[in-house]
Amino acid sequence: MPELIVDKSRCLRNIERMATRARENQLSFRPHCKTHQSAEVAGWLREFGVSKITVSSFSMASYFAAAGWTDILVAFPFDPGQLDTLNELCERAEVSVLIDNMETLSHLTKIHQNVSFYLDIDTGYGRTGLPAASLEEIAGIIQKSKGNRRLTFSGFYCHAGHSYKTAIPGERAAIHQKALTDLSALKQEFSRCDPRVLYGDTPNCSTQSDFDGIDEITPGNFVFYDLIQHHLGSCNLEDIAVAVACPVVGKYPNHRRLVIHGGGVHFSKEQLVVRNSPVFGQLLDPASGKWMGIQPEQYITSLSQEHGILEHCGEWLEQVSIGQILNFLPVHSCMTANLMRTEDGRIITTGGK
Amino acid sequence: MPELIVDKSRCLRNIERMATRARENQLSFRPHCKTHQSAEVAGWLREFGVSKITVSSFSMASYFAAAGWTDILVAFPFDPGQLDTLNELCERAEVSVLIDNMETLSHLTKIHQNVSFYLDIDTGYGRTGLPAASLEEIAGIIQKSKGNRRLTFSGFYCHAGHSYKTAIPGERAAIHQKALTDLSALKQEFSRCDPRVLYGDTPNCSTQSDFDGIDEITPGNFVFYDLIQHHLGSCNLEDIAVAVACPVVGKYPNHRRLVIHGGGVHFSKEQLVVRNSPVFGQLLDPASGKWMGIQPEQYITSLSQEHGILEHCGEWLEQVSIGQILNFLPVHSCMTANLMRTEDGRIITTGGK
Repeated sequence: MPELIVDKSRCLRNIERMATRARENQLSFRPHCKTHQSAEVAGWLREFGVSKITVSSFSMASYFAAAGWTDILVAFPFDPGQLDTLNELCERAEVSVLIDNMETLSHLTKIHQNVSFYLDIDTGYGRTGLPAASLEEIAGIIQKSKGNRRLTFSGFYCHAGHSYKTAIPGERAAIHQKALTDLSALKQEFSRCDPRVLYGDTPNCSTQSDFDGIDEITPGNFVFYDLIQHHLGSCNLEDIAVAVACPVVGKYPNHRRLVIHGGGVHFSKEQLVVRNSPVFGQLLDPASGKWMGIQPEQYITSLSQEHGILEHCGEWLEQVSIGQILNFLPVHSCMTANLMRTEDGRIITTGGK
Repeated sequence: MPELIVDKSRCLRNIERMATRARENQLSFRPHCKTHQSAEVAGWLREFGVSKITVSSFSMASYFAAAGWTDILVAFPFDPGQLDTLNELCERAEVSVLIDNMETLSHLTKIHQNVSFYLDIDTGYGRTGLPAASLEEIAGIIQKSKGNRRLTFSGFYCHAGHSYKTAIPGERAAIHQKALTDLSALKQEFSRCDPRVLYGDTPNCSTQSDFDGIDEITPGNFVFYDLIQHHLGSCNLEDIAVAVACPVVGKYPNHRRLVIHGGGVHFSKEQLVVRNSPVFGQLLDPASGKWMGIQPEQYITSLSQEHGILEHCGEWLEQVSIGQILNFLPVHSCMTANLMRTEDGRIITTGGK
């Protein structure tokens, strides 16, 4: 059976690096836990002074609240259907939610507990959020929220996810600077409300050094990183802290093909395009046992539900046996970890390698 | 929260159609249960005389054995690491496995229980299996298996998965006929072993009418179907029996954009290309409540982990409220159902619509 394995020493190194970056920039640090969805990994964050987290659903929020986390931001547009869950959750933890329109606010006013909210700001990603320039609408929402003593406007939240759309440093920097400018202007405009500004995806938090106007960063993927982040220049290949261990089940040397047990239900179907072809995972050196890629790079070239297929295999194929376990770096660790997680959030950790 | 919903009447109609097709062609029927992974749905198969099933992993095999199924084919290349699981499973059910090489057979000979195996035959898909022409190797494996009284060679299995690579009827028919020719030749060549021939993916089983030389069909996806199958011509849109119910969480009329709670962890990142753009799900008419697509077709145009984004929304967008539940047909129902299944295999069924 395929298993998710985590190199804990790489993980701790990644966490320490980001925690240091936050401290050096006088930023509060509220890591996103959607990547690992694991109380065990979240526990490692505590060792670096983390006391508050970000999640992207109420089921994750409930899970982490049960694991003892008491300050949780649900960084996903509030769904009115989750009002009961939110009420229940607020009895156990300080919970913040995200809104970006008056209609959602009117649902949120039915809350029985104290809850704080952030306004979701769009600085160019184009997924959710109010444009930073919509001052009137923002002021209206803040004003209306004051009519309910249970609701507290805490500040602005921005996920500049278009940072994932470019690997070019100048373009990344422009996306980041635009976000800083927009958010700083909002902070200034609404200074009477003393808003906190929350920001920070993994590509920007890993590569940018100016965080002027930001109070708190919320990156998540950096704990594990993955091939997409490597491709984007957010990390080195040696920073990727998670792999999928897959048994070899088929060997076709005449076709230079290998088949593993490890498919779309393990890796996810997320693809990365390398040299004009989609890939779904990268093989780590089977001979050394070390977490390093073989040369030339060897990728999973296609996936079925349970099968992973490696075409164009090199000479190393001759040395592989049926049943042997091979390790693969995932394309998108959030999606892979979600598929491979156990009900109780356990993961298999390996020693430093 | 997104929920998987199944239109049971469509499901039953799909099962009945395939069961009838099997009966009319004098074919035994061993449906693949990897699509739904649900004891509840598998129970519906029983109503049409099904008494044996196909799965693609030992965890599925264990799940369905616990649900009372006693004749299970694990149609995935046998992984030697699963020998203990196989031994344990054979105490509770008749289990068959798949092999395609001598190395795997040598592992399988360590079995403590009686087990039958099928030889996996490749008629052109190029994933796993022995080419039908490798008579010497096939004979060698059958011969060697006879040295172990616990092992029984039951016949040949073929998944002609390249049927998924074309929507052109002539090309599909050619793939199917090549498989029939290859498998019939093998059945003839090894007639002294009285081999059964198992065959049948959903595209071929849904569209072909000649099954000469085949003993048993093993399609799976037909129970639910999905947008990929519709695109391939395997079904009508009205045959798709599964949908994902997603709450609206963001509305951006100025950008003709809608955001739902329903992302890559619900639909999977499997994509279908429609008019040169990837899509991840198709909206069902929110007004009628019926399971029919709106016109012009409206698709999920991108997915994050928890967000589904619909760009280029039509006039219907004006009528939608935050919190309203919209239903979407999935691109690949196997991947979606895998993500949305509960631990106990329950699904939410709706009445006929």
